[in-house]
Amino acid sequence: MGTTQLESVPEPKYWHLKTVLTEALDSEFSVGEILPNERELAARFGVARATLRQALEQLELEGRLQRRRGVGTTVAPPRVGVAVGTEQHAWPGAPGDDAWQAVDCVTAAPPASVADALETGRDEAVHTIRRIRMSHGQPVAAELLHIPASSVPDLTGIDAPSGPARARAVLRELHRLELERRDSAVELGSARADDARELDRLPGAPVLVVTTRYIAAGRTAALAVSTYRADTCRLTFGDSGAVEIHDSPERRAS
Amino acid sequence: MGTTQLESVPEPKYWHLKTVLTEALDSEFSVGEILPNERELAARFGVARATLRQALEQLELEGRLQRRRGVGTTVAPPRVGVAVGTEQHAWPGAPGDDAWQAVDCVTAAPPASVADALETGRDEAVHTIRRIRMSHGQPVAAELLHIPASSVPDLTGIDAPSGPARARAVLRELHRLELERRDSAVELGSARADDARELDRLPGAPVLVVTTRYIAAGRTAALAVSTYRADTCRLTFGDSGAVEIHDSPERRAS
Repeated sequence: MGTTQLESVPEPKYWHLKTVLTEALDSEFSVGEILPNERELAARFGVARATLRQALEQLELEGRLQRRRGVGTTVAPPRVGVAVGTEQHAWPGAPGDDAWQAVDCVTAAPPASVADALETGRDEAVHTIRRIRMSHGQPVAAELLHIPASSVPDLTGIDAPSGPARARAVLRELHRLELERRDSAVELGSARADDARELDRLPGAPVLVVTTRYIAAGRTAALAVSTYRADTCRLTFGDSGAVEIHDSPERRAS
Repeated sequence: MGTTQLESVPEPKYWHLKTVLTEALDSEFSVGEILPNERELAARFGVARATLRQALEQLELEGRLQRRRGVGTTVAPPRVGVAVGTEQHAWPGAPGDDAWQAVDCVTAAPPASVADALETGRDEAVHTIRRIRMSHGQPVAAELLHIPASSVPDLTGIDAPSGPARARAVLRELHRLELERRDSAVELGSARADDARELDRLPGAPVLVVTTRYIAAGRTAALAVSTYRADTCRLTFGDSGAVEIHDSPERRAS
């Protein structure tokens, strides 16, 4: 790709460098390939390490690069489309919802922020189910699904007190309610330490946080906070849930 | 808030620091307030500047802080919920869609990536309408709406050749088609220079890119690439399009 004269451009240097790097990725590198180290790249393009890092960070935001512990910076595969907004009227864990695996269930008084979001009393017990979403054999999302005890009043103590079996029992009870609607929101976040571990990311890595409120009988029967890997996921919603443009936002529109 | 001993924690220092800073923001600072500079903060918490910057970057990802040119780092207001997935069957610019303002319209052969996404020939003319979405008087999103000439065959040359008037004429013609469905995808991206300018962000700032494919008569009649400010926006979809939890992902679930 050769070096490039960056002095004359009005845009920030890192921005122009990013464009040059993008072209280089398209022309010279293949998916999974490891990039030269920062020192080499900085020398090659005649920029400061800080400038290079800014450009690499943006390419990471766009899903073009992945930084992995012990591996280095590699060229990322196209993002995977994962359906979020389809089946607007399905409960979590309903038949057909096999993308998610319930890994645990704990019953306790929730954090204040969760209690407030659920509009329950702060001392009301809440079942919190931890679920992992797999796609192509890789974990793409980690979820905390909060279900007020009042949403599943007939839950018996006979079932396992915790763990996947308990989670399934809680979901079975939840499915007895008639779901009125689901409201969701997507926002940028940073991975909590526990989610980061599940998703093989560093704490604080950029994630897409999907908050879904399940409404039944006019109240919030369940609240899901799902943390998706922002580097590998494109969240799709709509009737078919399939928008597949294997191109980064930058390249798609430029 | 006092200083904190960060040596003994297993988590990355920046991660623990971020938690400490979050508490400080809740207890000591109000929305819009300017934080002390990095040197003072680093000294106060007994951490290196690099560690502090990592923590600040994560708080920015979570929408707790805003870095603004010439102002410094300020405490961010709660994110604004903007509906994306409601009105699944409405055309862009349809009556009632007054959140968006069409600012320009250009007719030309599109970039290859757009032509491919539209599944049109690379030399077919495409009308590209630029729209800005306002919320609470602030621009929250910038959009490029691509409409193949074949979607609006009866468009007359009588109308203005470009500008808002032309955009409105193209949309009027588009609305004659019967919309079958909309498919959307949300992914993390970095702001292009032109979008960054519209949104008062620096090029490369984290953004949420919503790609919407409008299907009519079995083909893509229009393709919208909407760039939302990730720092100030929470994208809501679902029946009511209203999920309002004024709490960052981190604090919501912790």
